[in-house]
Amino acid sequence: MMQSAALAAETLSAASLETVETPALALDLAKVDRNIARLRSRLAQLGVAFRPHVKTSKSLDVARRLFPEGTGPITVSTLAEAEYFADGGFSDITYAVGLSLDKIDRARQLAAQGLRLSVLIDTVEQAHALAEAARDGGAMPAVLIEIDCDGHRGGVLPDDPALLVIAVMLARGGVNLAGVLTHAGESYNARGGDGLPEAAEGERAAAVAAAQMLRAAGHAAPVVSVGSTPTAHFARDLTGVTEVRAGVFTFFDLVMHGIGVCEVDDIAVSVVATVIGHRPEKGWILTDGGWMAMSRDRGTQRHPVDQGYGLVCDIDGNPFGDVIVEDASQEHGIIKVRPGSDGTLPELPIGARVRILPNHACATCAQHEVYNVVDGSATGQGRVITAQWPRMRGW
Amino acid sequence: MMQSAALAAETLSAASLETVETPALALDLAKVDRNIARLRSRLAQLGVAFRPHVKTSKSLDVARRLFPEGTGPITVSTLAEAEYFADGGFSDITYAVGLSLDKIDRARQLAAQGLRLSVLIDTVEQAHALAEAARDGGAMPAVLIEIDCDGHRGGVLPDDPALLVIAVMLARGGVNLAGVLTHAGESYNARGGDGLPEAAEGERAAAVAAAQMLRAAGHAAPVVSVGSTPTAHFARDLTGVTEVRAGVFTFFDLVMHGIGVCEVDDIAVSVVATVIGHRPEKGWILTDGGWMAMSRDRGTQRHPVDQGYGLVCDIDGNPFGDVIVEDASQEHGIIKVRPGSDGTLPELPIGARVRILPNHACATCAQHEVYNVVDGSATGQGRVITAQWPRMRGW
Repeated sequence: MMQSAALAAETLSAASLETVETPALALDLAKVDRNIARLRSRLAQLGVAFRPHVKTSKSLDVARRLFPEGTGPITVSTLAEAEYFADGGFSDITYAVGLSLDKIDRARQLAAQGLRLSVLIDTVEQAHALAEAARDGGAMPAVLIEIDCDGHRGGVLPDDPALLVIAVMLARGGVNLAGVLTHAGESYNARGGDGLPEAAEGERAAAVAAAQMLRAAGHAAPVVSVGSTPTAHFARDLTGVTEVRAGVFTFFDLVMHGIGVCEVDDIAVSVVATVIGHRPEKGWILTDGGWMAMSRDRGTQRHPVDQGYGLVCDIDGNPFGDVIVEDASQEHGIIKVRPGSDGTLPELPIGARVRILPNHACATCAQHEVYNVVDGSATGQGRVITAQWPRMRGW
Repeated sequence: MMQSAALAAETLSAASLETVETPALALDLAKVDRNIARLRSRLAQLGVAFRPHVKTSKSLDVARRLFPEGTGPITVSTLAEAEYFADGGFSDITYAVGLSLDKIDRARQLAAQGLRLSVLIDTVEQAHALAEAARDGGAMPAVLIEIDCDGHRGGVLPDDPALLVIAVMLARGGVNLAGVLTHAGESYNARGGDGLPEAAEGERAAAVAAAQMLRAAGHAAPVVSVGSTPTAHFARDLTGVTEVRAGVFTFFDLVMHGIGVCEVDDIAVSVVATVIGHRPEKGWILTDGGWMAMSRDRGTQRHPVDQGYGLVCDIDGNPFGDVIVEDASQEHGIIKVRPGSDGTLPELPIGARVRILPNHACATCAQHEVYNVVDGSATGQGRVITAQWPRMRGW
């Protein structure tokens, strides 16, 4: 596998979405850059800092599109990501999943290496374990307390006295309480209208209320971190918030399109697959793009428009219309006109190639080792693979 | 990552499901061996050869439990698997996914290296391309024609005259037609009773009918290959069949349990996760075993018993009862009592570990780089990691 964008020129000249071994992951860099610019501009208008989540791409090369200087700040979902991005030069990282007690030593090693690392907790047990660990005087990560803004997952309710117990325990242990963090996970279940601005306001209000409670009790708690891709794009006011996190916006996907956060044309990542069979009597075209290539994610299953395992496009990324991967085995995809629609199955001979837009970019990309980078805005050159960018995995 | 079972002794003495970084994949070797012995014995009684599918494990070490001599015959789902297992000494491999035209050269390279390779086709286009390729006199793989026995996916209907067109085209091109292959994919939708024996008989009858049609037209077609894990375990008679394929039986999973093919106690693979949070008011326990560790597979969603993202067990693999991973984010799992059941949420403090049985072993294992091998039958030693076995991925 290529280890960087430095593909040999002679390899590159031959590399194309028409010749790459399928199934393969294609990444349209023009769309990535456009998605980044759009959200950066929005957050600048709202006057708030940006700490993008890199769990979608898990790629140094993609993260460097967000930060050309390559230092962050970024958000990660695993300590292995923190280690990978720190090795790659990123110096300011928030690990935004509740810290497992047995990962404290690993987090401290990163802090000892000079990384500006924040970890997330929401229980007295975690605060106690961190305070105990700090007794040896060694380096410690900063701590954010997770706030529950919408009942989606973990976190302390913004008015829960446990918030102060945790803060006091950290302070007595000499552990730096950096502030609070929340994530409006329920925003993924919103649908257009006022749902998303309301989710964004709920997220903001919960985080700010929690920070105010801490400050009233004498804790500085400077960081007020909020964010999800839907709320980042629909927040109308972020007073009191110091930073916004968002991740999937870099690539976007059909779930984000389904809830009204992006256009289909904004989706930067797709799976290239090859036609390997026809069942005209069933209205099926079979490809080598099964669930191993798409992931098992069926995130649009309960949306008004169910995209199956993905929306089918031609090799240049233009959707055929209501044509989806309706079912998938491990290494087979079944392309079909969306049930109930008036779409038409395209003529695709054996050996033809398609590009399939995914339900969920985070899940689909995780099935692949490399991004085949193309520039869809380059007239007549949109199929040329200009680089192959590796991604990391594991925990 | 460890590259083989040859873990250093001092590492092994400390390695345990209690200390391994979570989330992690655990493999109970005693169950693997028992599952293999059970099916081998069954197929011996039916008087038919066995060509197990290794797409579930994608591991040389696991495949060597099937074949201690390490040569096969085996079935694979990608050419990358064929290359990996050929490199590891396996000499007889069937690639059981319809051959993409642009993979013909890669398949020929394997044949040229002396691998006994069979590929699968079901169209005149593929037969034509193979016959054209063979004109240079170089090595060619043998060919199996895919037969559709149940309308599940690809294949030629057993009485379709296209079968003979393909056979004649291959014969004229000097390409070896080894026989026919079918897969009763619809058997995964059967539920107990006579459904599975009937699916097995349908699979057998379709394959044998197709072989007879070819033989009546003068083609030897010696191979009659059938199989899926459900039909392999429920076939009552395999007259005319020369080999059976099955894959997921090596590990089994909750989908196979749900359709009545195995007991929960037969499931050899599980994900070890650590408790990172509690929401008692919601009846939730949060762990670090999210969908990145479990996969997005919801294969039991339409079963009478929906297992969510997996069935929760204690660290020794004993199920708590009706306790499942009810929802999952990328790196969070939400453990809950199964809705509608009378199960009880176990007492699991922050830092406690659980093992989660997966819906679909093929999908869950694909999320991991290594199997942490344990022997659940070793009294008092069932948590000791005796080896770490890597798996391959990609296409």
